[in-house]
Amino acid sequence: MVARERGSLVPVKDGWPQATASQPFLLNRTRRLAPHLSTLGVDAFLVSHLPNIRYLCGFSGSSALLLVEAARATLFTDSRYTFQAKQETSGVRVHIAKNGLLSAVGDALKARRGRTRVACSEGHLTVVQKRALETLARKSVRWVSDQNTVEKLRSVKDPSELAVIREAAELISRVFRDVLKMIRVGVSELDLAAEIEYRMKRRGASGASFETIVAAGPRAAWAHARPSSKLLKRNELVVLDQGAILRGYCSDMTRTVFVGRASGRVRKLYQAVLDAQQAAKAAIRPGATAGEVDQAAREVLRQAGLARYFTHSTGHGLGLEVHEMPRLGKGDGTVLQEGMILTVEPGVYIEGFGGIRIEDDVVVTARGAQELTTAPRDLLEL
Amino acid sequence: MVARERGSLVPVKDGWPQATASQPFLLNRTRRLAPHLSTLGVDAFLVSHLPNIRYLCGFSGSSALLLVEAARATLFTDSRYTFQAKQETSGVRVHIAKNGLLSAVGDALKARRGRTRVACSEGHLTVVQKRALETLARKSVRWVSDQNTVEKLRSVKDPSELAVIREAAELISRVFRDVLKMIRVGVSELDLAAEIEYRMKRRGASGASFETIVAAGPRAAWAHARPSSKLLKRNELVVLDQGAILRGYCSDMTRTVFVGRASGRVRKLYQAVLDAQQAAKAAIRPGATAGEVDQAAREVLRQAGLARYFTHSTGHGLGLEVHEMPRLGKGDGTVLQEGMILTVEPGVYIEGFGGIRIEDDVVVTARGAQELTTAPRDLLEL
Repeated sequence: MVARERGSLVPVKDGWPQATASQPFLLNRTRRLAPHLSTLGVDAFLVSHLPNIRYLCGFSGSSALLLVEAARATLFTDSRYTFQAKQETSGVRVHIAKNGLLSAVGDALKARRGRTRVACSEGHLTVVQKRALETLARKSVRWVSDQNTVEKLRSVKDPSELAVIREAAELISRVFRDVLKMIRVGVSELDLAAEIEYRMKRRGASGASFETIVAAGPRAAWAHARPSSKLLKRNELVVLDQGAILRGYCSDMTRTVFVGRASGRVRKLYQAVLDAQQAAKAAIRPGATAGEVDQAAREVLRQAGLARYFTHSTGHGLGLEVHEMPRLGKGDGTVLQEGMILTVEPGVYIEGFGGIRIEDDVVVTARGAQELTTAPRDLLEL
Repeated sequence: MVARERGSLVPVKDGWPQATASQPFLLNRTRRLAPHLSTLGVDAFLVSHLPNIRYLCGFSGSSALLLVEAARATLFTDSRYTFQAKQETSGVRVHIAKNGLLSAVGDALKARRGRTRVACSEGHLTVVQKRALETLARKSVRWVSDQNTVEKLRSVKDPSELAVIREAAELISRVFRDVLKMIRVGVSELDLAAEIEYRMKRRGASGASFETIVAAGPRAAWAHARPSSKLLKRNELVVLDQGAILRGYCSDMTRTVFVGRASGRVRKLYQAVLDAQQAAKAAIRPGATAGEVDQAAREVLRQAGLARYFTHSTGHGLGLEVHEMPRLGKGDGTVLQEGMILTVEPGVYIEGFGGIRIEDDVVVTARGAQELTTAPRDLLEL
């Protein structure tokens, strides 16, 4: 894979969720920032986080900065993306930077008259990048925090986004049903993961939202296990966590199955996790806080004596990134809104024994959580 | 996929090249930093870049900080990785942070007596993270640049690393040969990409080094095209850029083929790119600079009147990341050393017409570049 021609200071981030080159439609959401220019009292937003750039102007390349001013928006990218930038964006000026993106942005800011206040995200700029910007743009620029404005916009999906994520969730549900028949003694975690990712692509996904997790037996106790060459054995739990990217948007679904006949202990644990998930789903409604949803799941597991085995948060937002705002974590005060898309995924992990996680994607509606992933949730014994 | 329990400030980076959970062997390379403690005049290195952490101690999770002091090394991670951290590391203390990794590191630094000088990479810490560290560790800590010490160590591979990358390069070469028979009129770019990634996993890769590029016809002029639903047509160039991750290490290989019988123009362009690649390979030897290698390729294309179509650098280092030091770019003064692994990948991109890129992975030996990728380089007409 080619590297950029000149050493811009913006790292090539080839890792973030990617999609097909074809956008569902050309869009220019940069105008959504207009009211926030005045709210924050700034003249411009400098957007550096690639998913935010994609959200605002449609550009899906791995090297970009976006400067949104009141009267115009400019996308800075490098020469690898000359044609792609033109094709993916509309209503946005494209500037191909010859000497690094930061330098080009610095020049653009210097060209403005008088003092300029620019909002940026210090959580998405490295110390080196920020220092370079400060030097390049000189003293005429005052930098202020962007207050996660774009992330907040992104957390509430518009109907076109919801439609794509619904499709991505349905896709991964079907893939799971397809591979169920392959889950048996003797198959390796890696082979199952390869089948899952192959089948999602054959169904139209551009890729996996994250490296598919297939973890069997004691390895199921690793919440973030990578698939290994381990072969499935009789009487093992298998955690399968998978997601597909469709036109840039992610789905994310976990199921846990049992190879053989489950013992009473396994059944009890499984039911507790399923109950916790159901309680969390039931707590989701516009106006509830993220922390309340987390608490609902946690309380069910506490009553089952399993609280200490639930070592992560209950869920997270989902969209152009597989982890976005809000986070359904302990005490999180974020107020849920209609149109947010969330994962709900309590789990228990017991060293030496294994783990169980059940995860669905849901959309927050006026009537509560509506499930987007549809694969069976009852304990499957294969 | 689960999010961490508490809001540590270190973002979850699920994108960086990942491998199977099984390391080839447990290692502790943190001692390689020992001489650099005195060179830089510091008491500790705080390592925040995940591939650097993996290189030094073997931990492959997506959330970690590593503090290397003269007498010990401590890995900070979160509760999702309790078991994995224990299993993947040896000789490194594992600290499961309850209230965020930065906070735990701050506590560890405060516990040290007297003034402490700590080397960190400001290119791998966001402004927010750095500020939090400064606040948490208080004034007893003086922060200095780590001078890319770990990246420089990583750029020269040891024999065990070379062996794995050689295997990853051979693997991707075989996958390319496997899919050659599928490249024909009517197949889509996405289907080819799915086949390539499926086959690399069936051959033991844990995943793709980056999203596989398959770009046909005019889309071949996008150096970083994502595969689309476009079907291959007769008389089109097809660029295929693919790489596999094997036990954490990446390969990266591009071939360009022609569907049908190539015209004289296509043959001439192809030969110019192949000649440029050969010239670059011939320029590689210990003691040459990265810029000299780039210049060798660029000069061949200049003489063919194609300089302006070669819009990226000639290559880059390859290892735990698909892009690492050194970069074979214009005027880069980095001196090549035995044991470096590089891609050599000149290309030409002509809007409306298409593109041609030929890329191999090579290791720098005392006798020059030795090729690791082995798929045929002559123009294939399919």
